[in-house]
Amino acid sequence: MTRTDPKTLTSALAALEQRVGPLDRIKQRIKRHHIETPSWAYGDSGTRFKVFRQPGVPRNPFEKMEDAAAVHTLTGVAPSVAIHIPWDKVDDFGKLSEYANQLGVRIGAINPNLFQDDEYKLGSLTNESAAVRRKALDHLIECIEIGKTVKSDIQSLWFADGTNFAGQDNLRERKRRFEQGLSAVYDHLPEGGRMLIEYKFFEPAFYHTDIGDWGMSYVLCQRLGQRAQVLVDLGHHPLGSNIEHIVAFLIDEGKMGGFHFNNKKYADDDLTVGSINPFELFLIYNELVAAEDDPALRPNIAYMIDQSHNEKPKIEAMIQSVMNCQTAYARALLVDRAALTQAQQNGDIIGAEEVLQEAYQTDVRPLLAQVRLDMGIDPDPILAFRASGYLEKVQKERK
Amino acid sequence: MTRTDPKTLTSALAALEQRVGPLDRIKQRIKRHHIETPSWAYGDSGTRFKVFRQPGVPRNPFEKMEDAAAVHTLTGVAPSVAIHIPWDKVDDFGKLSEYANQLGVRIGAINPNLFQDDEYKLGSLTNESAAVRRKALDHLIECIEIGKTVKSDIQSLWFADGTNFAGQDNLRERKRRFEQGLSAVYDHLPEGGRMLIEYKFFEPAFYHTDIGDWGMSYVLCQRLGQRAQVLVDLGHHPLGSNIEHIVAFLIDEGKMGGFHFNNKKYADDDLTVGSINPFELFLIYNELVAAEDDPALRPNIAYMIDQSHNEKPKIEAMIQSVMNCQTAYARALLVDRAALTQAQQNGDIIGAEEVLQEAYQTDVRPLLAQVRLDMGIDPDPILAFRASGYLEKVQKERK
Amino acid sequence: MTRTDPKTLTSALAALEQRVGPLDRIKQRIKRHHIETPSWAYGDSGTRFKVFRQPGVPRNPFEKMEDAAAVHTLTGVAPSVAIHIPWDKVDDFGKLSEYANQLGVRIGAINPNLFQDDEYKLGSLTNESAAVRRKALDHLIECIEIGKTVKSDIQSLWFADGTNFAGQDNLRERKRRFEQGLSAVYDHLPEGGRMLIEYKFFEPAFYHTDIGDWGMSYVLCQRLGQRAQVLVDLGHHPLGSNIEHIVAFLIDEGKMGGFHFNNKKYADDDLTVGSINPFELFLIYNELVAAEDDPALRPNIAYMIDQSHNEKPKIEAMIQSVMNCQTAYARALLVDRAALTQAQQNGDIIGAEEVLQEAYQTDVRPLLAQVRLDMGIDPDPILAFRASGYLEKVQKERK
Amino acid sequence: MTRTDPKTLTSALAALEQRVGPLDRIKQRIKRHHIETPSWAYGDSGTRFKVFRQPGVPRNPFEKMEDAAAVHTLTGVAPSVAIHIPWDKVDDFGKLSEYANQLGVRIGAINPNLFQDDEYKLGSLTNESAAVRRKALDHLIECIEIGKTVKSDIQSLWFADGTNFAGQDNLRERKRRFEQGLSAVYDHLPEGGRMLIEYKFFEPAFYHTDIGDWGMSYVLCQRLGQRAQVLVDLGHHPLGSNIEHIVAFLIDEGKMGGFHFNNKKYADDDLTVGSINPFELFLIYNELVAAEDDPALRPNIAYMIDQSHNEKPKIEAMIQSVMNCQTAYARALLVDRAALTQAQQNGDIIGAEEVLQEAYQTDVRPLLAQVRLDMGIDPDPILAFRASGYLEKVQKERK
Repeated sequence: MTRTDPKTLTSALAALEQRVGPLDRIKQRIKRHHIETPSWAYGDSGTRFKVFRQPGVPRNPFEKMEDAAAVHTLTGVAPSVAIHIPWDKVDDFGKLSEYANQLGVRIGAINPNLFQDDEYKLGSLTNESAAVRRKALDHLIECIEIGKTVKSDIQSLWFADGTNFAGQDNLRERKRRFEQGLSAVYDHLPEGGRMLIEYKFFEPAFYHTDIGDWGMSYVLCQRLGQRAQVLVDLGHHPLGSNIEHIVAFLIDEGKMGGFHFNNKKYADDDLTVGSINPFELFLIYNELVAAEDDPALRPNIAYMIDQSHNEKPKIEAMIQSVMNCQTAYARALLVDRAALTQAQQNGDIIGAEEVLQEAYQTDVRPLLAQVRLDMGIDPDPILAFRASGYLEKVQKERK
Repeated sequence: MTRTDPKTLTSALAALEQRVGPLDRIKQRIKRHHIETPSWAYGDSGTRFKVFRQPGVPRNPFEKMEDAAAVHTLTGVAPSVAIHIPWDKVDDFGKLSEYANQLGVRIGAINPNLFQDDEYKLGSLTNESAAVRRKALDHLIECIEIGKTVKSDIQSLWFADGTNFAGQDNLRERKRRFEQGLSAVYDHLPEGGRMLIEYKFFEPAFYHTDIGDWGMSYVLCQRLGQRAQVLVDLGHHPLGSNIEHIVAFLIDEGKMGGFHFNNKKYADDDLTVGSINPFELFLIYNELVAAEDDPALRPNIAYMIDQSHNEKPKIEAMIQSVMNCQTAYARALLVDRAALTQAQQNGDIIGAEEVLQEAYQTDVRPLLAQVRLDMGIDPDPILAFRASGYLEKVQKERK
Repeated sequence: MTRTDPKTLTSALAALEQRVGPLDRIKQRIKRHHIETPSWAYGDSGTRFKVFRQPGVPRNPFEKMEDAAAVHTLTGVAPSVAIHIPWDKVDDFGKLSEYANQLGVRIGAINPNLFQDDEYKLGSLTNESAAVRRKALDHLIECIEIGKTVKSDIQSLWFADGTNFAGQDNLRERKRRFEQGLSAVYDHLPEGGRMLIEYKFFEPAFYHTDIGDWGMSYVLCQRLGQRAQVLVDLGHHPLGSNIEHIVAFLIDEGKMGGFHFNNKKYADDDLTVGSINPFELFLIYNELVAAEDDPALRPNIAYMIDQSHNEKPKIEAMIQSVMNCQTAYARALLVDRAALTQAQQNGDIIGAEEVLQEAYQTDVRPLLAQVRLDMGIDPDPILAFRASGYLEKVQKERK
Repeated sequence: MTRTDPKTLTSALAALEQRVGPLDRIKQRIKRHHIETPSWAYGDSGTRFKVFRQPGVPRNPFEKMEDAAAVHTLTGVAPSVAIHIPWDKVDDFGKLSEYANQLGVRIGAINPNLFQDDEYKLGSLTNESAAVRRKALDHLIECIEIGKTVKSDIQSLWFADGTNFAGQDNLRERKRRFEQGLSAVYDHLPEGGRMLIEYKFFEPAFYHTDIGDWGMSYVLCQRLGQRAQVLVDLGHHPLGSNIEHIVAFLIDEGKMGGFHFNNKKYADDDLTVGSINPFELFLIYNELVAAEDDPALRPNIAYMIDQSHNEKPKIEAMIQSVMNCQTAYARALLVDRAALTQAQQNGDIIGAEEVLQEAYQTDVRPLLAQVRLDMGIDPDPILAFRASGYLEKVQKERK
């Protein structure tokens, strides 16, 4: 990694400005584009084959807030932290929330866990057993209560429910149990609270997953009401899926609720967002910027990272991820939308493509460096982190 | 292929009856399970690399009806023929319909074509140009009129609309044009008419397809009204998709309108239904039979074949396809649903799976042979066709 | 599950014999077709999200042998047990081997583990560090020594080696380190010992896997020598792969060493072999039987199950898996190869396909039941296991 | 598209030079990196659903050379043209070759066609019929003769051979016929001639393809000899395949013979190279540059485009494609290989990744513009083409 050179920064920005016009509004939008990091990304995780433990990982939710705050301090745009219940369960959520605030961050989406109890082996809200369904429902309601305490307005729901073998359970019955359970949860949502429902193509269920694609999530949300929206995890689609199309479609339906950002080459690989196909991430952001620019739409989208790094150092990986999102967003902001529309209306396929490429191929690193300098932070967050001594410090403290 | 041996038939059926109980109702259901064949399967078709022309293929829609009638005569369960406009355009559709009736078949679903005119290069109902959209709309309305003439109650709509490159067109604008266009079509549907909307993962569009999955088709249908339903083509999904789950989901939503049967190993390969994964076909039928058995549901599903054979002789391939559907349906009828429910309620995964396997592994060829004998037709339709001299005859006549 | 009815068995077999000729040779081949079960399938395992622990699972390698012996006792065709080092490490392998023999089974393939030590985080034989490579090599040589002790002639090598991100390591350097390491291992193989090298498309590495497909495994084996052969795990291919083609190709090259049987719908799902696409399993067996029938070939293939059940009861699942292999093998034995060749030579695609279907659609359960009765075991192994009280007994004993 | 601004060019290049050092050697390498365009890309082509004909497409091989020459004139790096026999068959190949030379280009790889004759329906070199195999062989030998006449040293072989249905043919027999046929072809190769063997996952065969992956191609090449090498078409892999890994592997084996460049999102979509995942193209080029930099290797790789555009204007699309390759190559040349190696040796995954990103995110458009100016051509080839009047001219001439 190379340090930003302050001398070349000014000329690079001047050149950019000359090409695309004044950068102020773009810089403002970049500063306001917040990315939520997940508490679980700071702890150990891995594959089914092995969890490689890293020294210095947080021993409790408070320490996770510290790491998240470190990421926010260095990037300036990661002010909230998603939590996972019961992994982040504490006696006093008010205290956790207050601690976060003291560190300069706040608690974001609440993520219930309905897949790690033995009773959920054959399903949570879809379980044949009314008792298990009740238990799952109680947990979901508990999470809403926690949300109230920590002033979170998002419940982020992922269900591992599904089956491994043909015949294992009745697909339509399970759907109905899901509808019933979710409806009961929805009734508990506080004023202004939202419920985001995630879908996933497969894993950990390997024959069918009850909410297997965006359509199933959409149908459930549609039935529940306006405050239920779809959560798009970039790693939860079949290979080849055109995710930006799904995103555009959901935006148009008012059902695009939020993202779990990561990247994949094969399955739900949970790799660094933008690491496998950065052009795809740009195209997704291109739809988001187009929606932001459309006065008829008022998309309210939660941008959250959901990654689990087994090999990369966790805090650095999170800084890098936030930066990758910024890179894609900055490029999408540079798209000349009038020229794009013009080319589209002319049926000029190559012209339209090249409008996107002109934005995508622009080196936005100077722009992002300047935004950081404007915010009073280091233009090179990863290098700054390496120089900060933070990791060495927590490695000593957290045994 | 081996001829059915009448001597062993009785004992085989007796053994089956002993195992699963009286077969009368099952036999009746098999007789009533009709599969529609498509006119275009009788003509030449192929891949983008080569169309291998077969001697004797029909020269006009009337001759296609003859071939379809031959399939119906030999199988007893293929009484209707889907047509494709303009491929099957004739001056007098009343005459075509009457000719079909004389041959013992009738015209089924009407399939408009919105992908072979130069003007549709950048879309039909989604085209930037209002004139092209109008043209597409007129064609769709024309097809509804043809449907009235030939007493067809199904419009089967597949759109090739999509783009090949990022930026080529505005995804949300295209969606809205689609909604508008389809709504205008829906308004023209006659009393009792249905409109089935097909989706497809990709091809011929290779970046995005406007109706790319069942969810997009569902949303459009939902907005249009009750008489718009989803058409499931088995070859139009990403690899790994659990199609029986989608089918169960759509049935539960009252939106399962019909099938285009075929099979695939890779993409939209349009291979013989049941040839690559017959167990998957059985599982799809298993959901259909379960829905038929459920008094709370009244599924009204059109079973249609959509295949294009480049190498197999076309009429034989169609007979084989109809038989493969019957095989899957017969096996699904043998599923012991009470035992299945019992195992599911016990959480007995292996037990539930084995209930399905007991039906699937049953050799239903004697049962189907007997059904054919009951209907007065040859128990071995392919062999009967080979012996009939039909192909030799049309090869001489159709030059 | 239904009990085999002895009264109908005789007539079913008579009917089958009438159709396909004397069954003696087929029955003999079924009896001799041995399937190895893996010690690790008897212990707890799961997904990265959750391991559902089952009461009664073995507490040590000796108890795993007991469970494997139970499977062999009930199926009659699972006389060997693959072991995994260090999971199955014991002080005295001679004693373990002897214990197995007393139970009526023996130790089969040795599976080294090169993915669960912290040092292997960035690779084992491919690691940048010579010390780590040495450690990996030592472990592989240790496993060869264990193999000598327990009289196993197969080393079954799977490497998790790969990277998660572009640039993480030098792909060509890693290949060369692999060649070097494997060559050193090969030199330690005893007379008559074989080394089977497995490949995998992805997981746990998500950017590149050093031995990512059969071709890479083949090239390595080719360079090593005759006693290095490819191991095909059915779950380790991209979706859509024609596995039977790969198998036929490897057989023709003399490089088909063995199988890890399981089934997948999506990724390396490790589901019960034959549970997702039983026709594919039949087609694989069809190539195996064709090779057995070919006097010019002398395939020496190890048939091993590699599954990890998280939900199904483990012993039952293993019995079911062995039976599924038998079903596929029995069907493949029924293929009329002369008729198949005839149809192929005539270019009769449908005829050839139907020759396979005639075998595939045959209900081979009576045949397999009779084979078991001939061997003095219960015709319904799963029911027999359920009735045996074995599970209840070990659940009490193994706390 | 925006015109290159000569005023900013100098400062942009100075800034780049400041960052990465002197650009001369890089510029030289870019100038010498030649991309071959295919004659068939200039003619009409399409999907199985529709070929959209474009006015002005060449009416004969001579006119194809003119279009290819136009691409070379504008890009400066596309001096050779692959031809396809019999599509480009002319009475006098000497004359065609001479005409090409006069236009400033030359004939490159010869591509035989073994899939458009009715006799190849069931295979070419793999056909059951010795007569058909002989015909295929004769065609291949004819192409070698043509190659001698036009001084081409590459035979680029793609076979559509495969089957659509299980059982259709004997997989091992077909492999042996292939080996035999290819061996006979190889014997005819002239001194210095190379034979590149392409593989393809599927299409137009939908059950099995005889040369289905790089491994099968490799084994055939290995057996033939040094002058047989593998041809990698970027669109011929299963989704998710790590192509750069395959490329690195083949380079290490001395078997990487050439590329067919294009891009895909789903199947063999034949889209513009670099249009779907430009980062992947960069990673492939990264391996190529690393190999060029390695004194121990002497890769001799043919860089050829193989695309078939149905919607984009053909000449523009080809210019764009050549430029996309240049972009990827230029970025790969900027990779700081010493820093990359250092990061890899330190196990610094993020550091290594960022070395690649620093090159990839660099805006290389000024560099490429300068290279073009140095070569005396317009820095903006597509705009130059649009301004040239070439298309209007040929549209008038070619009716």
